[in-house]
Amino acid sequence: MTQSLSIQKLLDEFERLPGIGPKSAQRIVYWLLNAAHEDAERLAHAIIEVKETVHFCPQCFNYAEGDFCVICADTQRDKSIICVVSEPRDVSAIEKTRQYNGLYHVLGGALSPIDGIGPDDLTIKELLSRLAGDETTEVLMATNPNVEGETTAVYLSKLIKPLGVRTTRLASGLPVGGDIEFADEVTLGRAIESRREL
Amino acid sequence: MTQSLSIQKLLDEFERLPGIGPKSAQRIVYWLLNAAHEDAERLAHAIIEVKETVHFCPQCFNYAEGDFCVICADTQRDKSIICVVSEPRDVSAIEKTRQYNGLYHVLGGALSPIDGIGPDDLTIKELLSRLAGDETTEVLMATNPNVEGETTAVYLSKLIKPLGVRTTRLASGLPVGGDIEFADEVTLGRAIESRREL
Repeated sequence: MTQSLSIQKLLDEFERLPGIGPKSAQRIVYWLLNAAHEDAERLAHAIIEVKETVHFCPQCFNYAEGDFCVICADTQRDKSIICVVSEPRDVSAIEKTRQYNGLYHVLGGALSPIDGIGPDDLTIKELLSRLAGDETTEVLMATNPNVEGETTAVYLSKLIKPLGVRTTRLASGLPVGGDIEFADEVTLGRAIESRREL
Repeated sequence: MTQSLSIQKLLDEFERLPGIGPKSAQRIVYWLLNAAHEDAERLAHAIIEVKETVHFCPQCFNYAEGDFCVICADTQRDKSIICVVSEPRDVSAIEKTRQYNGLYHVLGGALSPIDGIGPDDLTIKELLSRLAGDETTEVLMATNPNVEGETTAVYLSKLIKPLGVRTTRLASGLPVGGDIEFADEVTLGRAIESRREL
């Protein structure tokens, strides 16, 4: 041990973060040691503040600071459509497209019998009670295009259709800018199946 | 702005760290939001603690927590040799080799007329006063093998040799495990010049 104890402790803490290996952790820690006291403190306080103020939105289960999340609280959003996602980070991803102006519902995961995640582990009951009002006319399933996400989308659409609400699903196909040559066969097959008129 | 304010603030803080882009910052922030309160607090407190407790060792100018850094305080180290480096991170790098058991001296940079860094900006005076005692018999120059590092090493050796202290320099040559084919010509030239008997 040829390192000061508190430096070693900070290195360990940074190495636990996702995507941070020993080299990155060391680079960050030396940067912080060199940084102004206020800069380091601002980072530390931002971490504490996030854990103290952020909770789940009681309506859509996205991260929120006030009574509701910024999207549910926004009167400019189209309240007739709800986009169902697995995780809060999926909300960020969809918001970045600027192609969607409706509300969200965060399930908190996806159905996965292998991992023991059933309908009661997700916010499905809360989604259904949101649909009980007659404001919602469409639910867009934006769960991941993998086995768990597809299963969850199909399961939910079976519950929602009888309520007279339109259910839609994100399109599958070739990534824009991608090469046909490098597309996996399932994606390419789906792109052929869902081909559109030109 | 479709993100909670404190989440956005934390994203900004992480993006300022070296090697952390927007995607990595988002991954870390969502990880922290999901993490136990204690885990996030431990990181925040480790940052604050490092800034509060770590200072420069008054003898070698490495990072230290106690009166002296862990290396200067270690009675098992060989006090007859001082390894001169530019930055505390170079101490870590050399320690990891386990090939060196002497003391260090951290200059706090390297001579660079272009950047306006002269002898008075480095801890050269402090190094010379360490050599005034007769304990030191060798000074190993471990500044970087670039223009600034070489200049600094040559400058220091001219000051130190008259004191009757041996000055040595890290060897230059091919990186172990490297390919001759891909070595730059200066390094390869240096490796030929410094060839050794087999």
